[in-house]
Amino acid sequence: MQIDILTLFPEMFTGVLGSSILSKAAEKSAVQYNVVNFREFSDNKHSTVDDYPYGGGAGMVLKPQPIFDAVASLTEQANTSRPRIILLCPQGERYSQRKAEELAGEEHLIFICGHYEGYDERIREHLVTDEISIGDYVLTGGELGAMVVIDSVVRLLPEVLGNQESHIKDSFSTGLLEHPHYTRPADFRGMKVPDVLLSGNHKLIEEWRNKETLRRTLLRRPDLFEKIELTPDQQKWLEEVKKEYE
Amino acid sequence: MQIDILTLFPEMFTGVLGSSILSKAAEKSAVQYNVVNFREFSDNKHSTVDDYPYGGGAGMVLKPQPIFDAVASLTEQANTSRPRIILLCPQGERYSQRKAEELAGEEHLIFICGHYEGYDERIREHLVTDEISIGDYVLTGGELGAMVVIDSVVRLLPEVLGNQESHIKDSFSTGLLEHPHYTRPADFRGMKVPDVLLSGNHKLIEEWRNKETLRRTLLRRPDLFEKIELTPDQQKWLEEVKKEYE
Repeated sequence: MQIDILTLFPEMFTGVLGSSILSKAAEKSAVQYNVVNFREFSDNKHSTVDDYPYGGGAGMVLKPQPIFDAVASLTEQANTSRPRIILLCPQGERYSQRKAEELAGEEHLIFICGHYEGYDERIREHLVTDEISIGDYVLTGGELGAMVVIDSVVRLLPEVLGNQESHIKDSFSTGLLEHPHYTRPADFRGMKVPDVLLSGNHKLIEEWRNKETLRRTLLRRPDLFEKIELTPDQQKWLEEVKKEYE
Repeated sequence: MQIDILTLFPEMFTGVLGSSILSKAAEKSAVQYNVVNFREFSDNKHSTVDDYPYGGGAGMVLKPQPIFDAVASLTEQANTSRPRIILLCPQGERYSQRKAEELAGEEHLIFICGHYEGYDERIREHLVTDEISIGDYVLTGGELGAMVVIDSVVRLLPEVLGNQESHIKDSFSTGLLEHPHYTRPADFRGMKVPDVLLSGNHKLIEEWRNKETLRRTLLRRPDLFEKIELTPDQQKWLEEVKKEYE
């Protein structure tokens, strides 16, 4: 997968793309990163990338020219079929695990990261294929959003996750929140591990984990139940858990 | 504000904490960052920080000892009143602008970032004050979540944003999505700016912007209307916009 990132702050990406899974994925050639300062594509002598908004008002707006030309250049270089051109912005579709899975099937992603400023609407209307928001909070720029999307997508690519990493159960893949985990010591400064986990009874342990998964989801994120269908066993356990709170 | 970050991948933070607003905030002494590898707090000779889960199963679990001891050390050093101790995890409360505003009022934040692994439940129950999830998608670790929370909080601290940055209207502060922006040229490769913005009629421009704000929210995020109260003018404009789609 080819991943191009258009930003005015390329140095922000060094630590994240150079560590852990994202770095290993590049070493394995599962992905290639290309961080581009789109100021280099400005066609005016002062390398300006923004200008005042039409209609007045405070704040600056990113000009269409540098971004259109940067995307055209990256698309030509890549020799891939149509890239997904992703704008990080608060107005975008809320990012989800389903969207990560969809993007993981692509050959080429181009991320456009604004910083402080608005985007000229023509970028949105005539250039980008996807507008994404990672959540309902205000960030200084699109860079952290791009890193979040890249991390969630790259870890899904074939052969990127090793054994150690891959078997952590993914909360949003199963559709429910994970049950609690415990490791040694059984008594840490007076705080104890539940007896059932020390019992060696695998059937009871499995049932405990299933019930705690349902309990945590019920108490913290009941909205998740609307999106999945429970098995008959899960339905029975959920009823038992609910009775404890009546 | 003192911000401590516990992680096994301290190098991930360099680019983000060293750029843009987060770096400027530290230069102005509005915030002090301290990135700590909690492996240094492991009390065993191999500096182990994780172990197998009780009850069996795949994956590893972060031991309580290194994290409890790292937090105790940071709390003592800081001489602040009670720090907020924040765990990044998919099971956490969904992060929001309201939470960012709440955290911006604190003196001391400690972030705990796991990576690949689960957390021993005793960390959750007996140590942390806040569990936060930045969204319903799976990330490799808590580091990106911590960066997102830090960026959204630090930009709210007094005197951190300069004039240039601060007057961008924040979508999630007004409760609605922003209207479109345009800058020069008025005709970019055949793509034109709406006439009203070139009219010089400020009353019409203001009305257009208000209506486009409402239109974008209606089409993309109608759920946001449930959380705010519209003014009589906004209600009238929203009715007009709705009629266009009947």
